[in-house]
Amino acid sequence: MLTIDPDRLLGDLRTLRRFGAVGTGVVRQSLTEVDLDARRWLCERMIDSGLDARIDGVGNVIGRSPLEGPALLIGSHSDTQPAGGWLDGALGVVYGLEIARSCMEASVDERLAVDAVAWVDEEGTFGTCLGSRSFLGLVSREEFERATNDAGVSLADALEAAGLDGIAALPEQGRYRGYLEAHIEQGANLERDDNWLGVVSTIVGSRDFTIRFVGQQNHAGTTPMHLRADAARAMIDVGYRINRLIGELASRSTVWTIGRLSVDPGAASIVPGSAEMHLQFRDPELAMIEAIDAAIHRSVSEADGNDRVEVTIERASSPIDPARMDPVLQRHMANAAEQQAPGRWVSMPSAAVHDAMFVAEVMPAGMLFIPSIGGVSHDFAENTSDEDIVRGCEVMATAVESILSD
Amino acid sequence: MLTIDPDRLLGDLRTLRRFGAVGTGVVRQSLTEVDLDARRWLCERMIDSGLDARIDGVGNVIGRSPLEGPALLIGSHSDTQPAGGWLDGALGVVYGLEIARSCMEASVDERLAVDAVAWVDEEGTFGTCLGSRSFLGLVSREEFERATNDAGVSLADALEAAGLDGIAALPEQGRYRGYLEAHIEQGANLERDDNWLGVVSTIVGSRDFTIRFVGQQNHAGTTPMHLRADAARAMIDVGYRINRLIGELASRSTVWTIGRLSVDPGAASIVPGSAEMHLQFRDPELAMIEAIDAAIHRSVSEADGNDRVEVTIERASSPIDPARMDPVLQRHMANAAEQQAPGRWVSMPSAAVHDAMFVAEVMPAGMLFIPSIGGVSHDFAENTSDEDIVRGCEVMATAVESILSD
Repeated sequence: MLTIDPDRLLGDLRTLRRFGAVGTGVVRQSLTEVDLDARRWLCERMIDSGLDARIDGVGNVIGRSPLEGPALLIGSHSDTQPAGGWLDGALGVVYGLEIARSCMEASVDERLAVDAVAWVDEEGTFGTCLGSRSFLGLVSREEFERATNDAGVSLADALEAAGLDGIAALPEQGRYRGYLEAHIEQGANLERDDNWLGVVSTIVGSRDFTIRFVGQQNHAGTTPMHLRADAARAMIDVGYRINRLIGELASRSTVWTIGRLSVDPGAASIVPGSAEMHLQFRDPELAMIEAIDAAIHRSVSEADGNDRVEVTIERASSPIDPARMDPVLQRHMANAAEQQAPGRWVSMPSAAVHDAMFVAEVMPAGMLFIPSIGGVSHDFAENTSDEDIVRGCEVMATAVESILSD
Repeated sequence: MLTIDPDRLLGDLRTLRRFGAVGTGVVRQSLTEVDLDARRWLCERMIDSGLDARIDGVGNVIGRSPLEGPALLIGSHSDTQPAGGWLDGALGVVYGLEIARSCMEASVDERLAVDAVAWVDEEGTFGTCLGSRSFLGLVSREEFERATNDAGVSLADALEAAGLDGIAALPEQGRYRGYLEAHIEQGANLERDDNWLGVVSTIVGSRDFTIRFVGQQNHAGTTPMHLRADAARAMIDVGYRINRLIGELASRSTVWTIGRLSVDPGAASIVPGSAEMHLQFRDPELAMIEAIDAAIHRSVSEADGNDRVEVTIERASSPIDPARMDPVLQRHMANAAEQQAPGRWVSMPSAAVHDAMFVAEVMPAGMLFIPSIGGVSHDFAENTSDEDIVRGCEVMATAVESILSD
């Protein structure tokens, strides 16, 4: 049976944490000097393990097993949020490294071909899941050329400064049996129900809309109510109705958020002439997403023109459809979880975006969650117990062995 | 019968317009150089008319009739909004000047004692209705010392720069029979109903509140709906309920406005942790104001704590109670209107604040409205026909004669 080394796993996680450490947190945004240092260190650790490793032209670190395969690709991203936690991404990267090198050590078994990967820029400094999408050929030339970070630095310039040629590695034709990614849950469901592991069934899809309201700015004292075209009032009405409408359609897994609201000119004694709100919703089921989408559009159409206020809706970002994780990979992980943590695992959707979402478009993909203490993530306080970290890697190793022996 | 000179009235209005003229509009904020120039010119015009005129220590221009009285005080303010119209304030000031000098010309009649006034800073560059309130002893030492304009210049410094000692004139004990102020309507009611004149019954009171919502900022993907404390959602709910609640209580004269709304941090994928909205309402009846005030506070109490969001309400400015115009002065103006514009006048509340609101606290006060073309005011486009301007002054002159002969 494939065994991992818990001390080596935890040791490498703690070493990786030092790149960009700030208190208990980590600041390691993609393509910064410290992110590139971390990638060079990861590459060396892969090479030390006997993998054929390199940093590709966009910054992905890929360690290829010398074994013929079919292989599993295992990893996650090693960049962080502007003020990130130490496990988000890093956990899955070091799982990949640890499992790949455990397989090398067990290489009497020629079947255990595992490639490790550390994707670049999952957090979207230049573009969400930029590294994995580049590897999969899902980034257009236009997107690549337009991409800039918040400081206005173009992706092309950032890559050039890093000595990278912008050409991503691509999957070796026919090599991969599938992709596995471990991640902290970034929610509190596992902890609350006293579960140790989550086998991800689906990564939720999402829609983002901007809803705009155009009325007529006016004096708040002398304009009688029946002559007003009050954009703020229309926005409150539509916001209220949409909250109720989605509430009626929603499943337990649906979430929706009005995260931004603004009115113009925004003065105490002026009836607002225009207003704008941002609505986002997420769900694991495409049918539900489409039902909510249609209901929102109907609601906006019904509101348009009421009390002389024009209401329009447009997409605020590209629609993301839910990504189903591969049922066979799920079954192997569920079996491994039941074997090593009987009754303490659950099948669950992922409410956050992950590289696996895009990888699933071109090969079977699976994800394993371990608990986030207090559900906290994207925060310096993000943490998970050593016990949970080691258990997760052991379960994934067991699943890898059963998948590659299947 | 007291007669005014239409050409002199329109001529002086047009001359006053030149002080700070910008296109069709006027920029003449209180205590600026151009405002002081206009005050000096007004003072000279009053002296030329035989009035004993001076600029007091806060900038009010007061022209006292040499007649013994009892007198009427007639005027308005000569300062403008940052981008104001040519009639707002100026109209009432020049009516005061024209009627006072017509009375001087008719001074065989010893009863026609009329003092003219041009108040300073009605528009609140340093404090709303600062000039009239200073004259009436309604400005506290603390308010005077704290007052600054938007550029951070203190009232004390602005007065010193203008060569004014900060000491306002006070009403001469026992002199005044009452105060009259003419103004453009700043709304479209007269025009819509084809009326030429409005005798003001009441100046509406108002209340301004800030309502704050404190929840818990969270990840918009991984935080399930039942665990959220969404400040934006709570704000939308409370805004919706308050709009319905006031709508149920309101009379035709009630107006209410949510003019400002904000959420924090205001990002697409973050459940807002806090939010804030500004609510203002106005009504001519104190009982209605108190009923709405109580209903809003009940509504906020009921919402406080729902879905873990704390909701609080506090006053955003001092409450302003409605000010009833004096019934006897109203009757004289109504009689004059019916005489000179039979069936084309109406009794109506004022939806905007005026100096008369404060003057009414210490003496009988009355207001006369003339139409605003298109209801536009506080805008360069503000205008009224010459015919309406002259008619208003003639009606007020007739009322003055009948009040002082009463």
